[in-house]
Amino acid sequence: MNNSLASNSSRTIAQEVVREITDLLYDYVLCLDDDRLEEWPDFFIEDCIYKIVPRENLRLKADLPIWFCENKNMLRDRVLALRTCSVYNLHYDRHLISNIRVKCQDDGRFYVHSNYAVFQTDLIEGKTILFCTGKYEDEVVFVAGQPKFKVKRVILDTYSVPNLLATPV
Amino acid sequence: MNNSLASNSSRTIAQEVVREITDLLYDYVLCLDDDRLEEWPDFFIEDCIYKIVPRENLRLKADLPIWFCENKNMLRDRVLALRTCSVYNLHYDRHLISNIRVKCQDDGRFYVHSNYAVFQTDLIEGKTILFCTGKYEDEVVFVAGQPKFKVKRVILDTYSVPNLLATPV
Amino acid sequence: MNNSLASNSSRTIAQEVVREITDLLYDYVLCLDDDRLEEWPDFFIEDCIYKIVPRENLRLKADLPIWFCENKNMLRDRVLALRTCSVYNLHYDRHLISNIRVKCQDDGRFYVHSNYAVFQTDLIEGKTILFCTGKYEDEVVFVAGQPKFKVKRVILDTYSVPNLLATPV
Repeated sequence: MNNSLASNSSRTIAQEVVREITDLLYDYVLCLDDDRLEEWPDFFIEDCIYKIVPRENLRLKADLPIWFCENKNMLRDRVLALRTCSVYNLHYDRHLISNIRVKCQDDGRFYVHSNYAVFQTDLIEGKTILFCTGKYEDEVVFVAGQPKFKVKRVILDTYSVPNLLATPV
Repeated sequence: MNNSLASNSSRTIAQEVVREITDLLYDYVLCLDDDRLEEWPDFFIEDCIYKIVPRENLRLKADLPIWFCENKNMLRDRVLALRTCSVYNLHYDRHLISNIRVKCQDDGRFYVHSNYAVFQTDLIEGKTILFCTGKYEDEVVFVAGQPKFKVKRVILDTYSVPNLLATPV
Repeated sequence: MNNSLASNSSRTIAQEVVREITDLLYDYVLCLDDDRLEEWPDFFIEDCIYKIVPRENLRLKADLPIWFCENKNMLRDRVLALRTCSVYNLHYDRHLISNIRVKCQDDGRFYVHSNYAVFQTDLIEGKTILFCTGKYEDEVVFVAGQPKFKVKRVILDTYSVPNLLATPV
C-alpha cells in the first residue's frame, strides 16, 4: 500500500536530513515572500529544472509546463527580466507550506512532496486574495553539505490562475 | 494552565511517535488530494469512528455530526457510493494542515489536535476557492507498528459549507 | 548568503528547543482559535511587547503599529475590554502557521520567524473568509523552563484588513 510504503521509506531517512530539507523549503518561500528574488536562483544547483505545471496537464499524462527553466542561468535571466522589463501587477506574496514528506532517496537525490497555498496582496488597494494552491514535487541534492533543488516541479491545482503568474511560486 | 499542561504532556511522548503521527496526518490528506479514495479507509482501524461536526453544534454541547461512520465498512461503503452513484461537483481538493499537537496518551491511544484548511478547484472553470476550515480532533492507535485512526473527528468552523460536502475532509 | 547563514544558525540550536518553540506557537493560536482569550496573556512575560504592524509601514522604514501593548497588563486590559465593552463582529478564528524558523539565538533570546493565515467565520451567516495573512517575527525567552514571548511582532500583509481587527492575531 502506498501509505505504508511512504511511511517506511521516510523512517529510514535520517531525521537530520528531513529537517534540513524542511528548512530549505521554508527558506525558499521566505525568500520569495520577502521579494529577495536575486537570491532565488541560489536555492538551485546549476544543472537544475524549474517548471510550473497545471494539474490538468498531469491528468492528461502530458506534462506541459507553463513555465520551464532548464538551468540556473534561465532562473537568473527571469529575475533580471522581472526587475528590468516585465510589466505585472505589483504585489506581496505569502506562502504557506504543509504536508512535507521526504518520500524516498535514490542515487543521492531526495524526493520531496509538499502542499502549498499562495496568498497575494496587491500594493494599490491592499486587498489580500487566495492566489493559487497546489503541490511541490521536488528533487533535492546536497552540495557541500547544503541542500539545493535539482528539480522543482510546481503543480498548480488549476490552469486558471487569477491575474498574471509573474513571479516564481 | 492548559498551555503548560499540554507542553508537558507532549514532551513526555517520544519524538519518534510524534513524527509518525504527523506523517499519518500528512499521508491522509495527500491520499484525499490525490483522489485515491479507495485507500482512504486504510488509514483507519476496523472498529473506528469518522464524523464531521459543525462547530456550532459543539458550542451547543450537542455533538450532532452531519456525517457519521462508526466502522470501517461504512467508510468503504461511502467510497463505493461516491464512485458509483453519488452526483456531486467534480473538484480537486487541497488540504493544508498546521498546528499538530499530540496532546496526551492514555491507554494506548494518542489524542491529536490539528488545524486544517481545504481549498477546492472545480474541474469545469478551474476556479480555486477556500472550501472550509476547522480542526481535527483525532485518536490514533498503533497496529503492527503502523499508526491508524481509531477516531477522526472533523470539526467544521461552520454549518454552512459552500457547495456540497461530498468527499471526505 | 542569507539562506545558508539561516540554515547554519538553526543547526546549532538544539532540536529540543526548536520543538518547544514550535509548540509554543501552536498552543498560542490554538488558544486564540478556541476563544480562550483569558489565557492569551500567559504566553507572554510581564515585560513584553505585542504589536501589529502593516507591511507597508515596514517598507517605509516607519514601524508604525496599529496595535501596541508594551507590557502584560496592557494585554490583560485588552482582553477585559473585549469581554466587557468592545463591540465587534462575533466570529471564530482559524489560524494556520507554517515556515517556522528559529533563526538565531542571542543573549538568551530566540528569534523566530513564521508565516500565518487567519480565516474568520462569522457567527450569523456562518460564512468563512480569508481574514488576513502575514508573518510573525517573535522573540522567545525561557522562564522556568517554559518558552514565553518577550516580543511578538505581527506583520500584516496589508493595512486594509476586512472588517474590524478586534481580537488578537
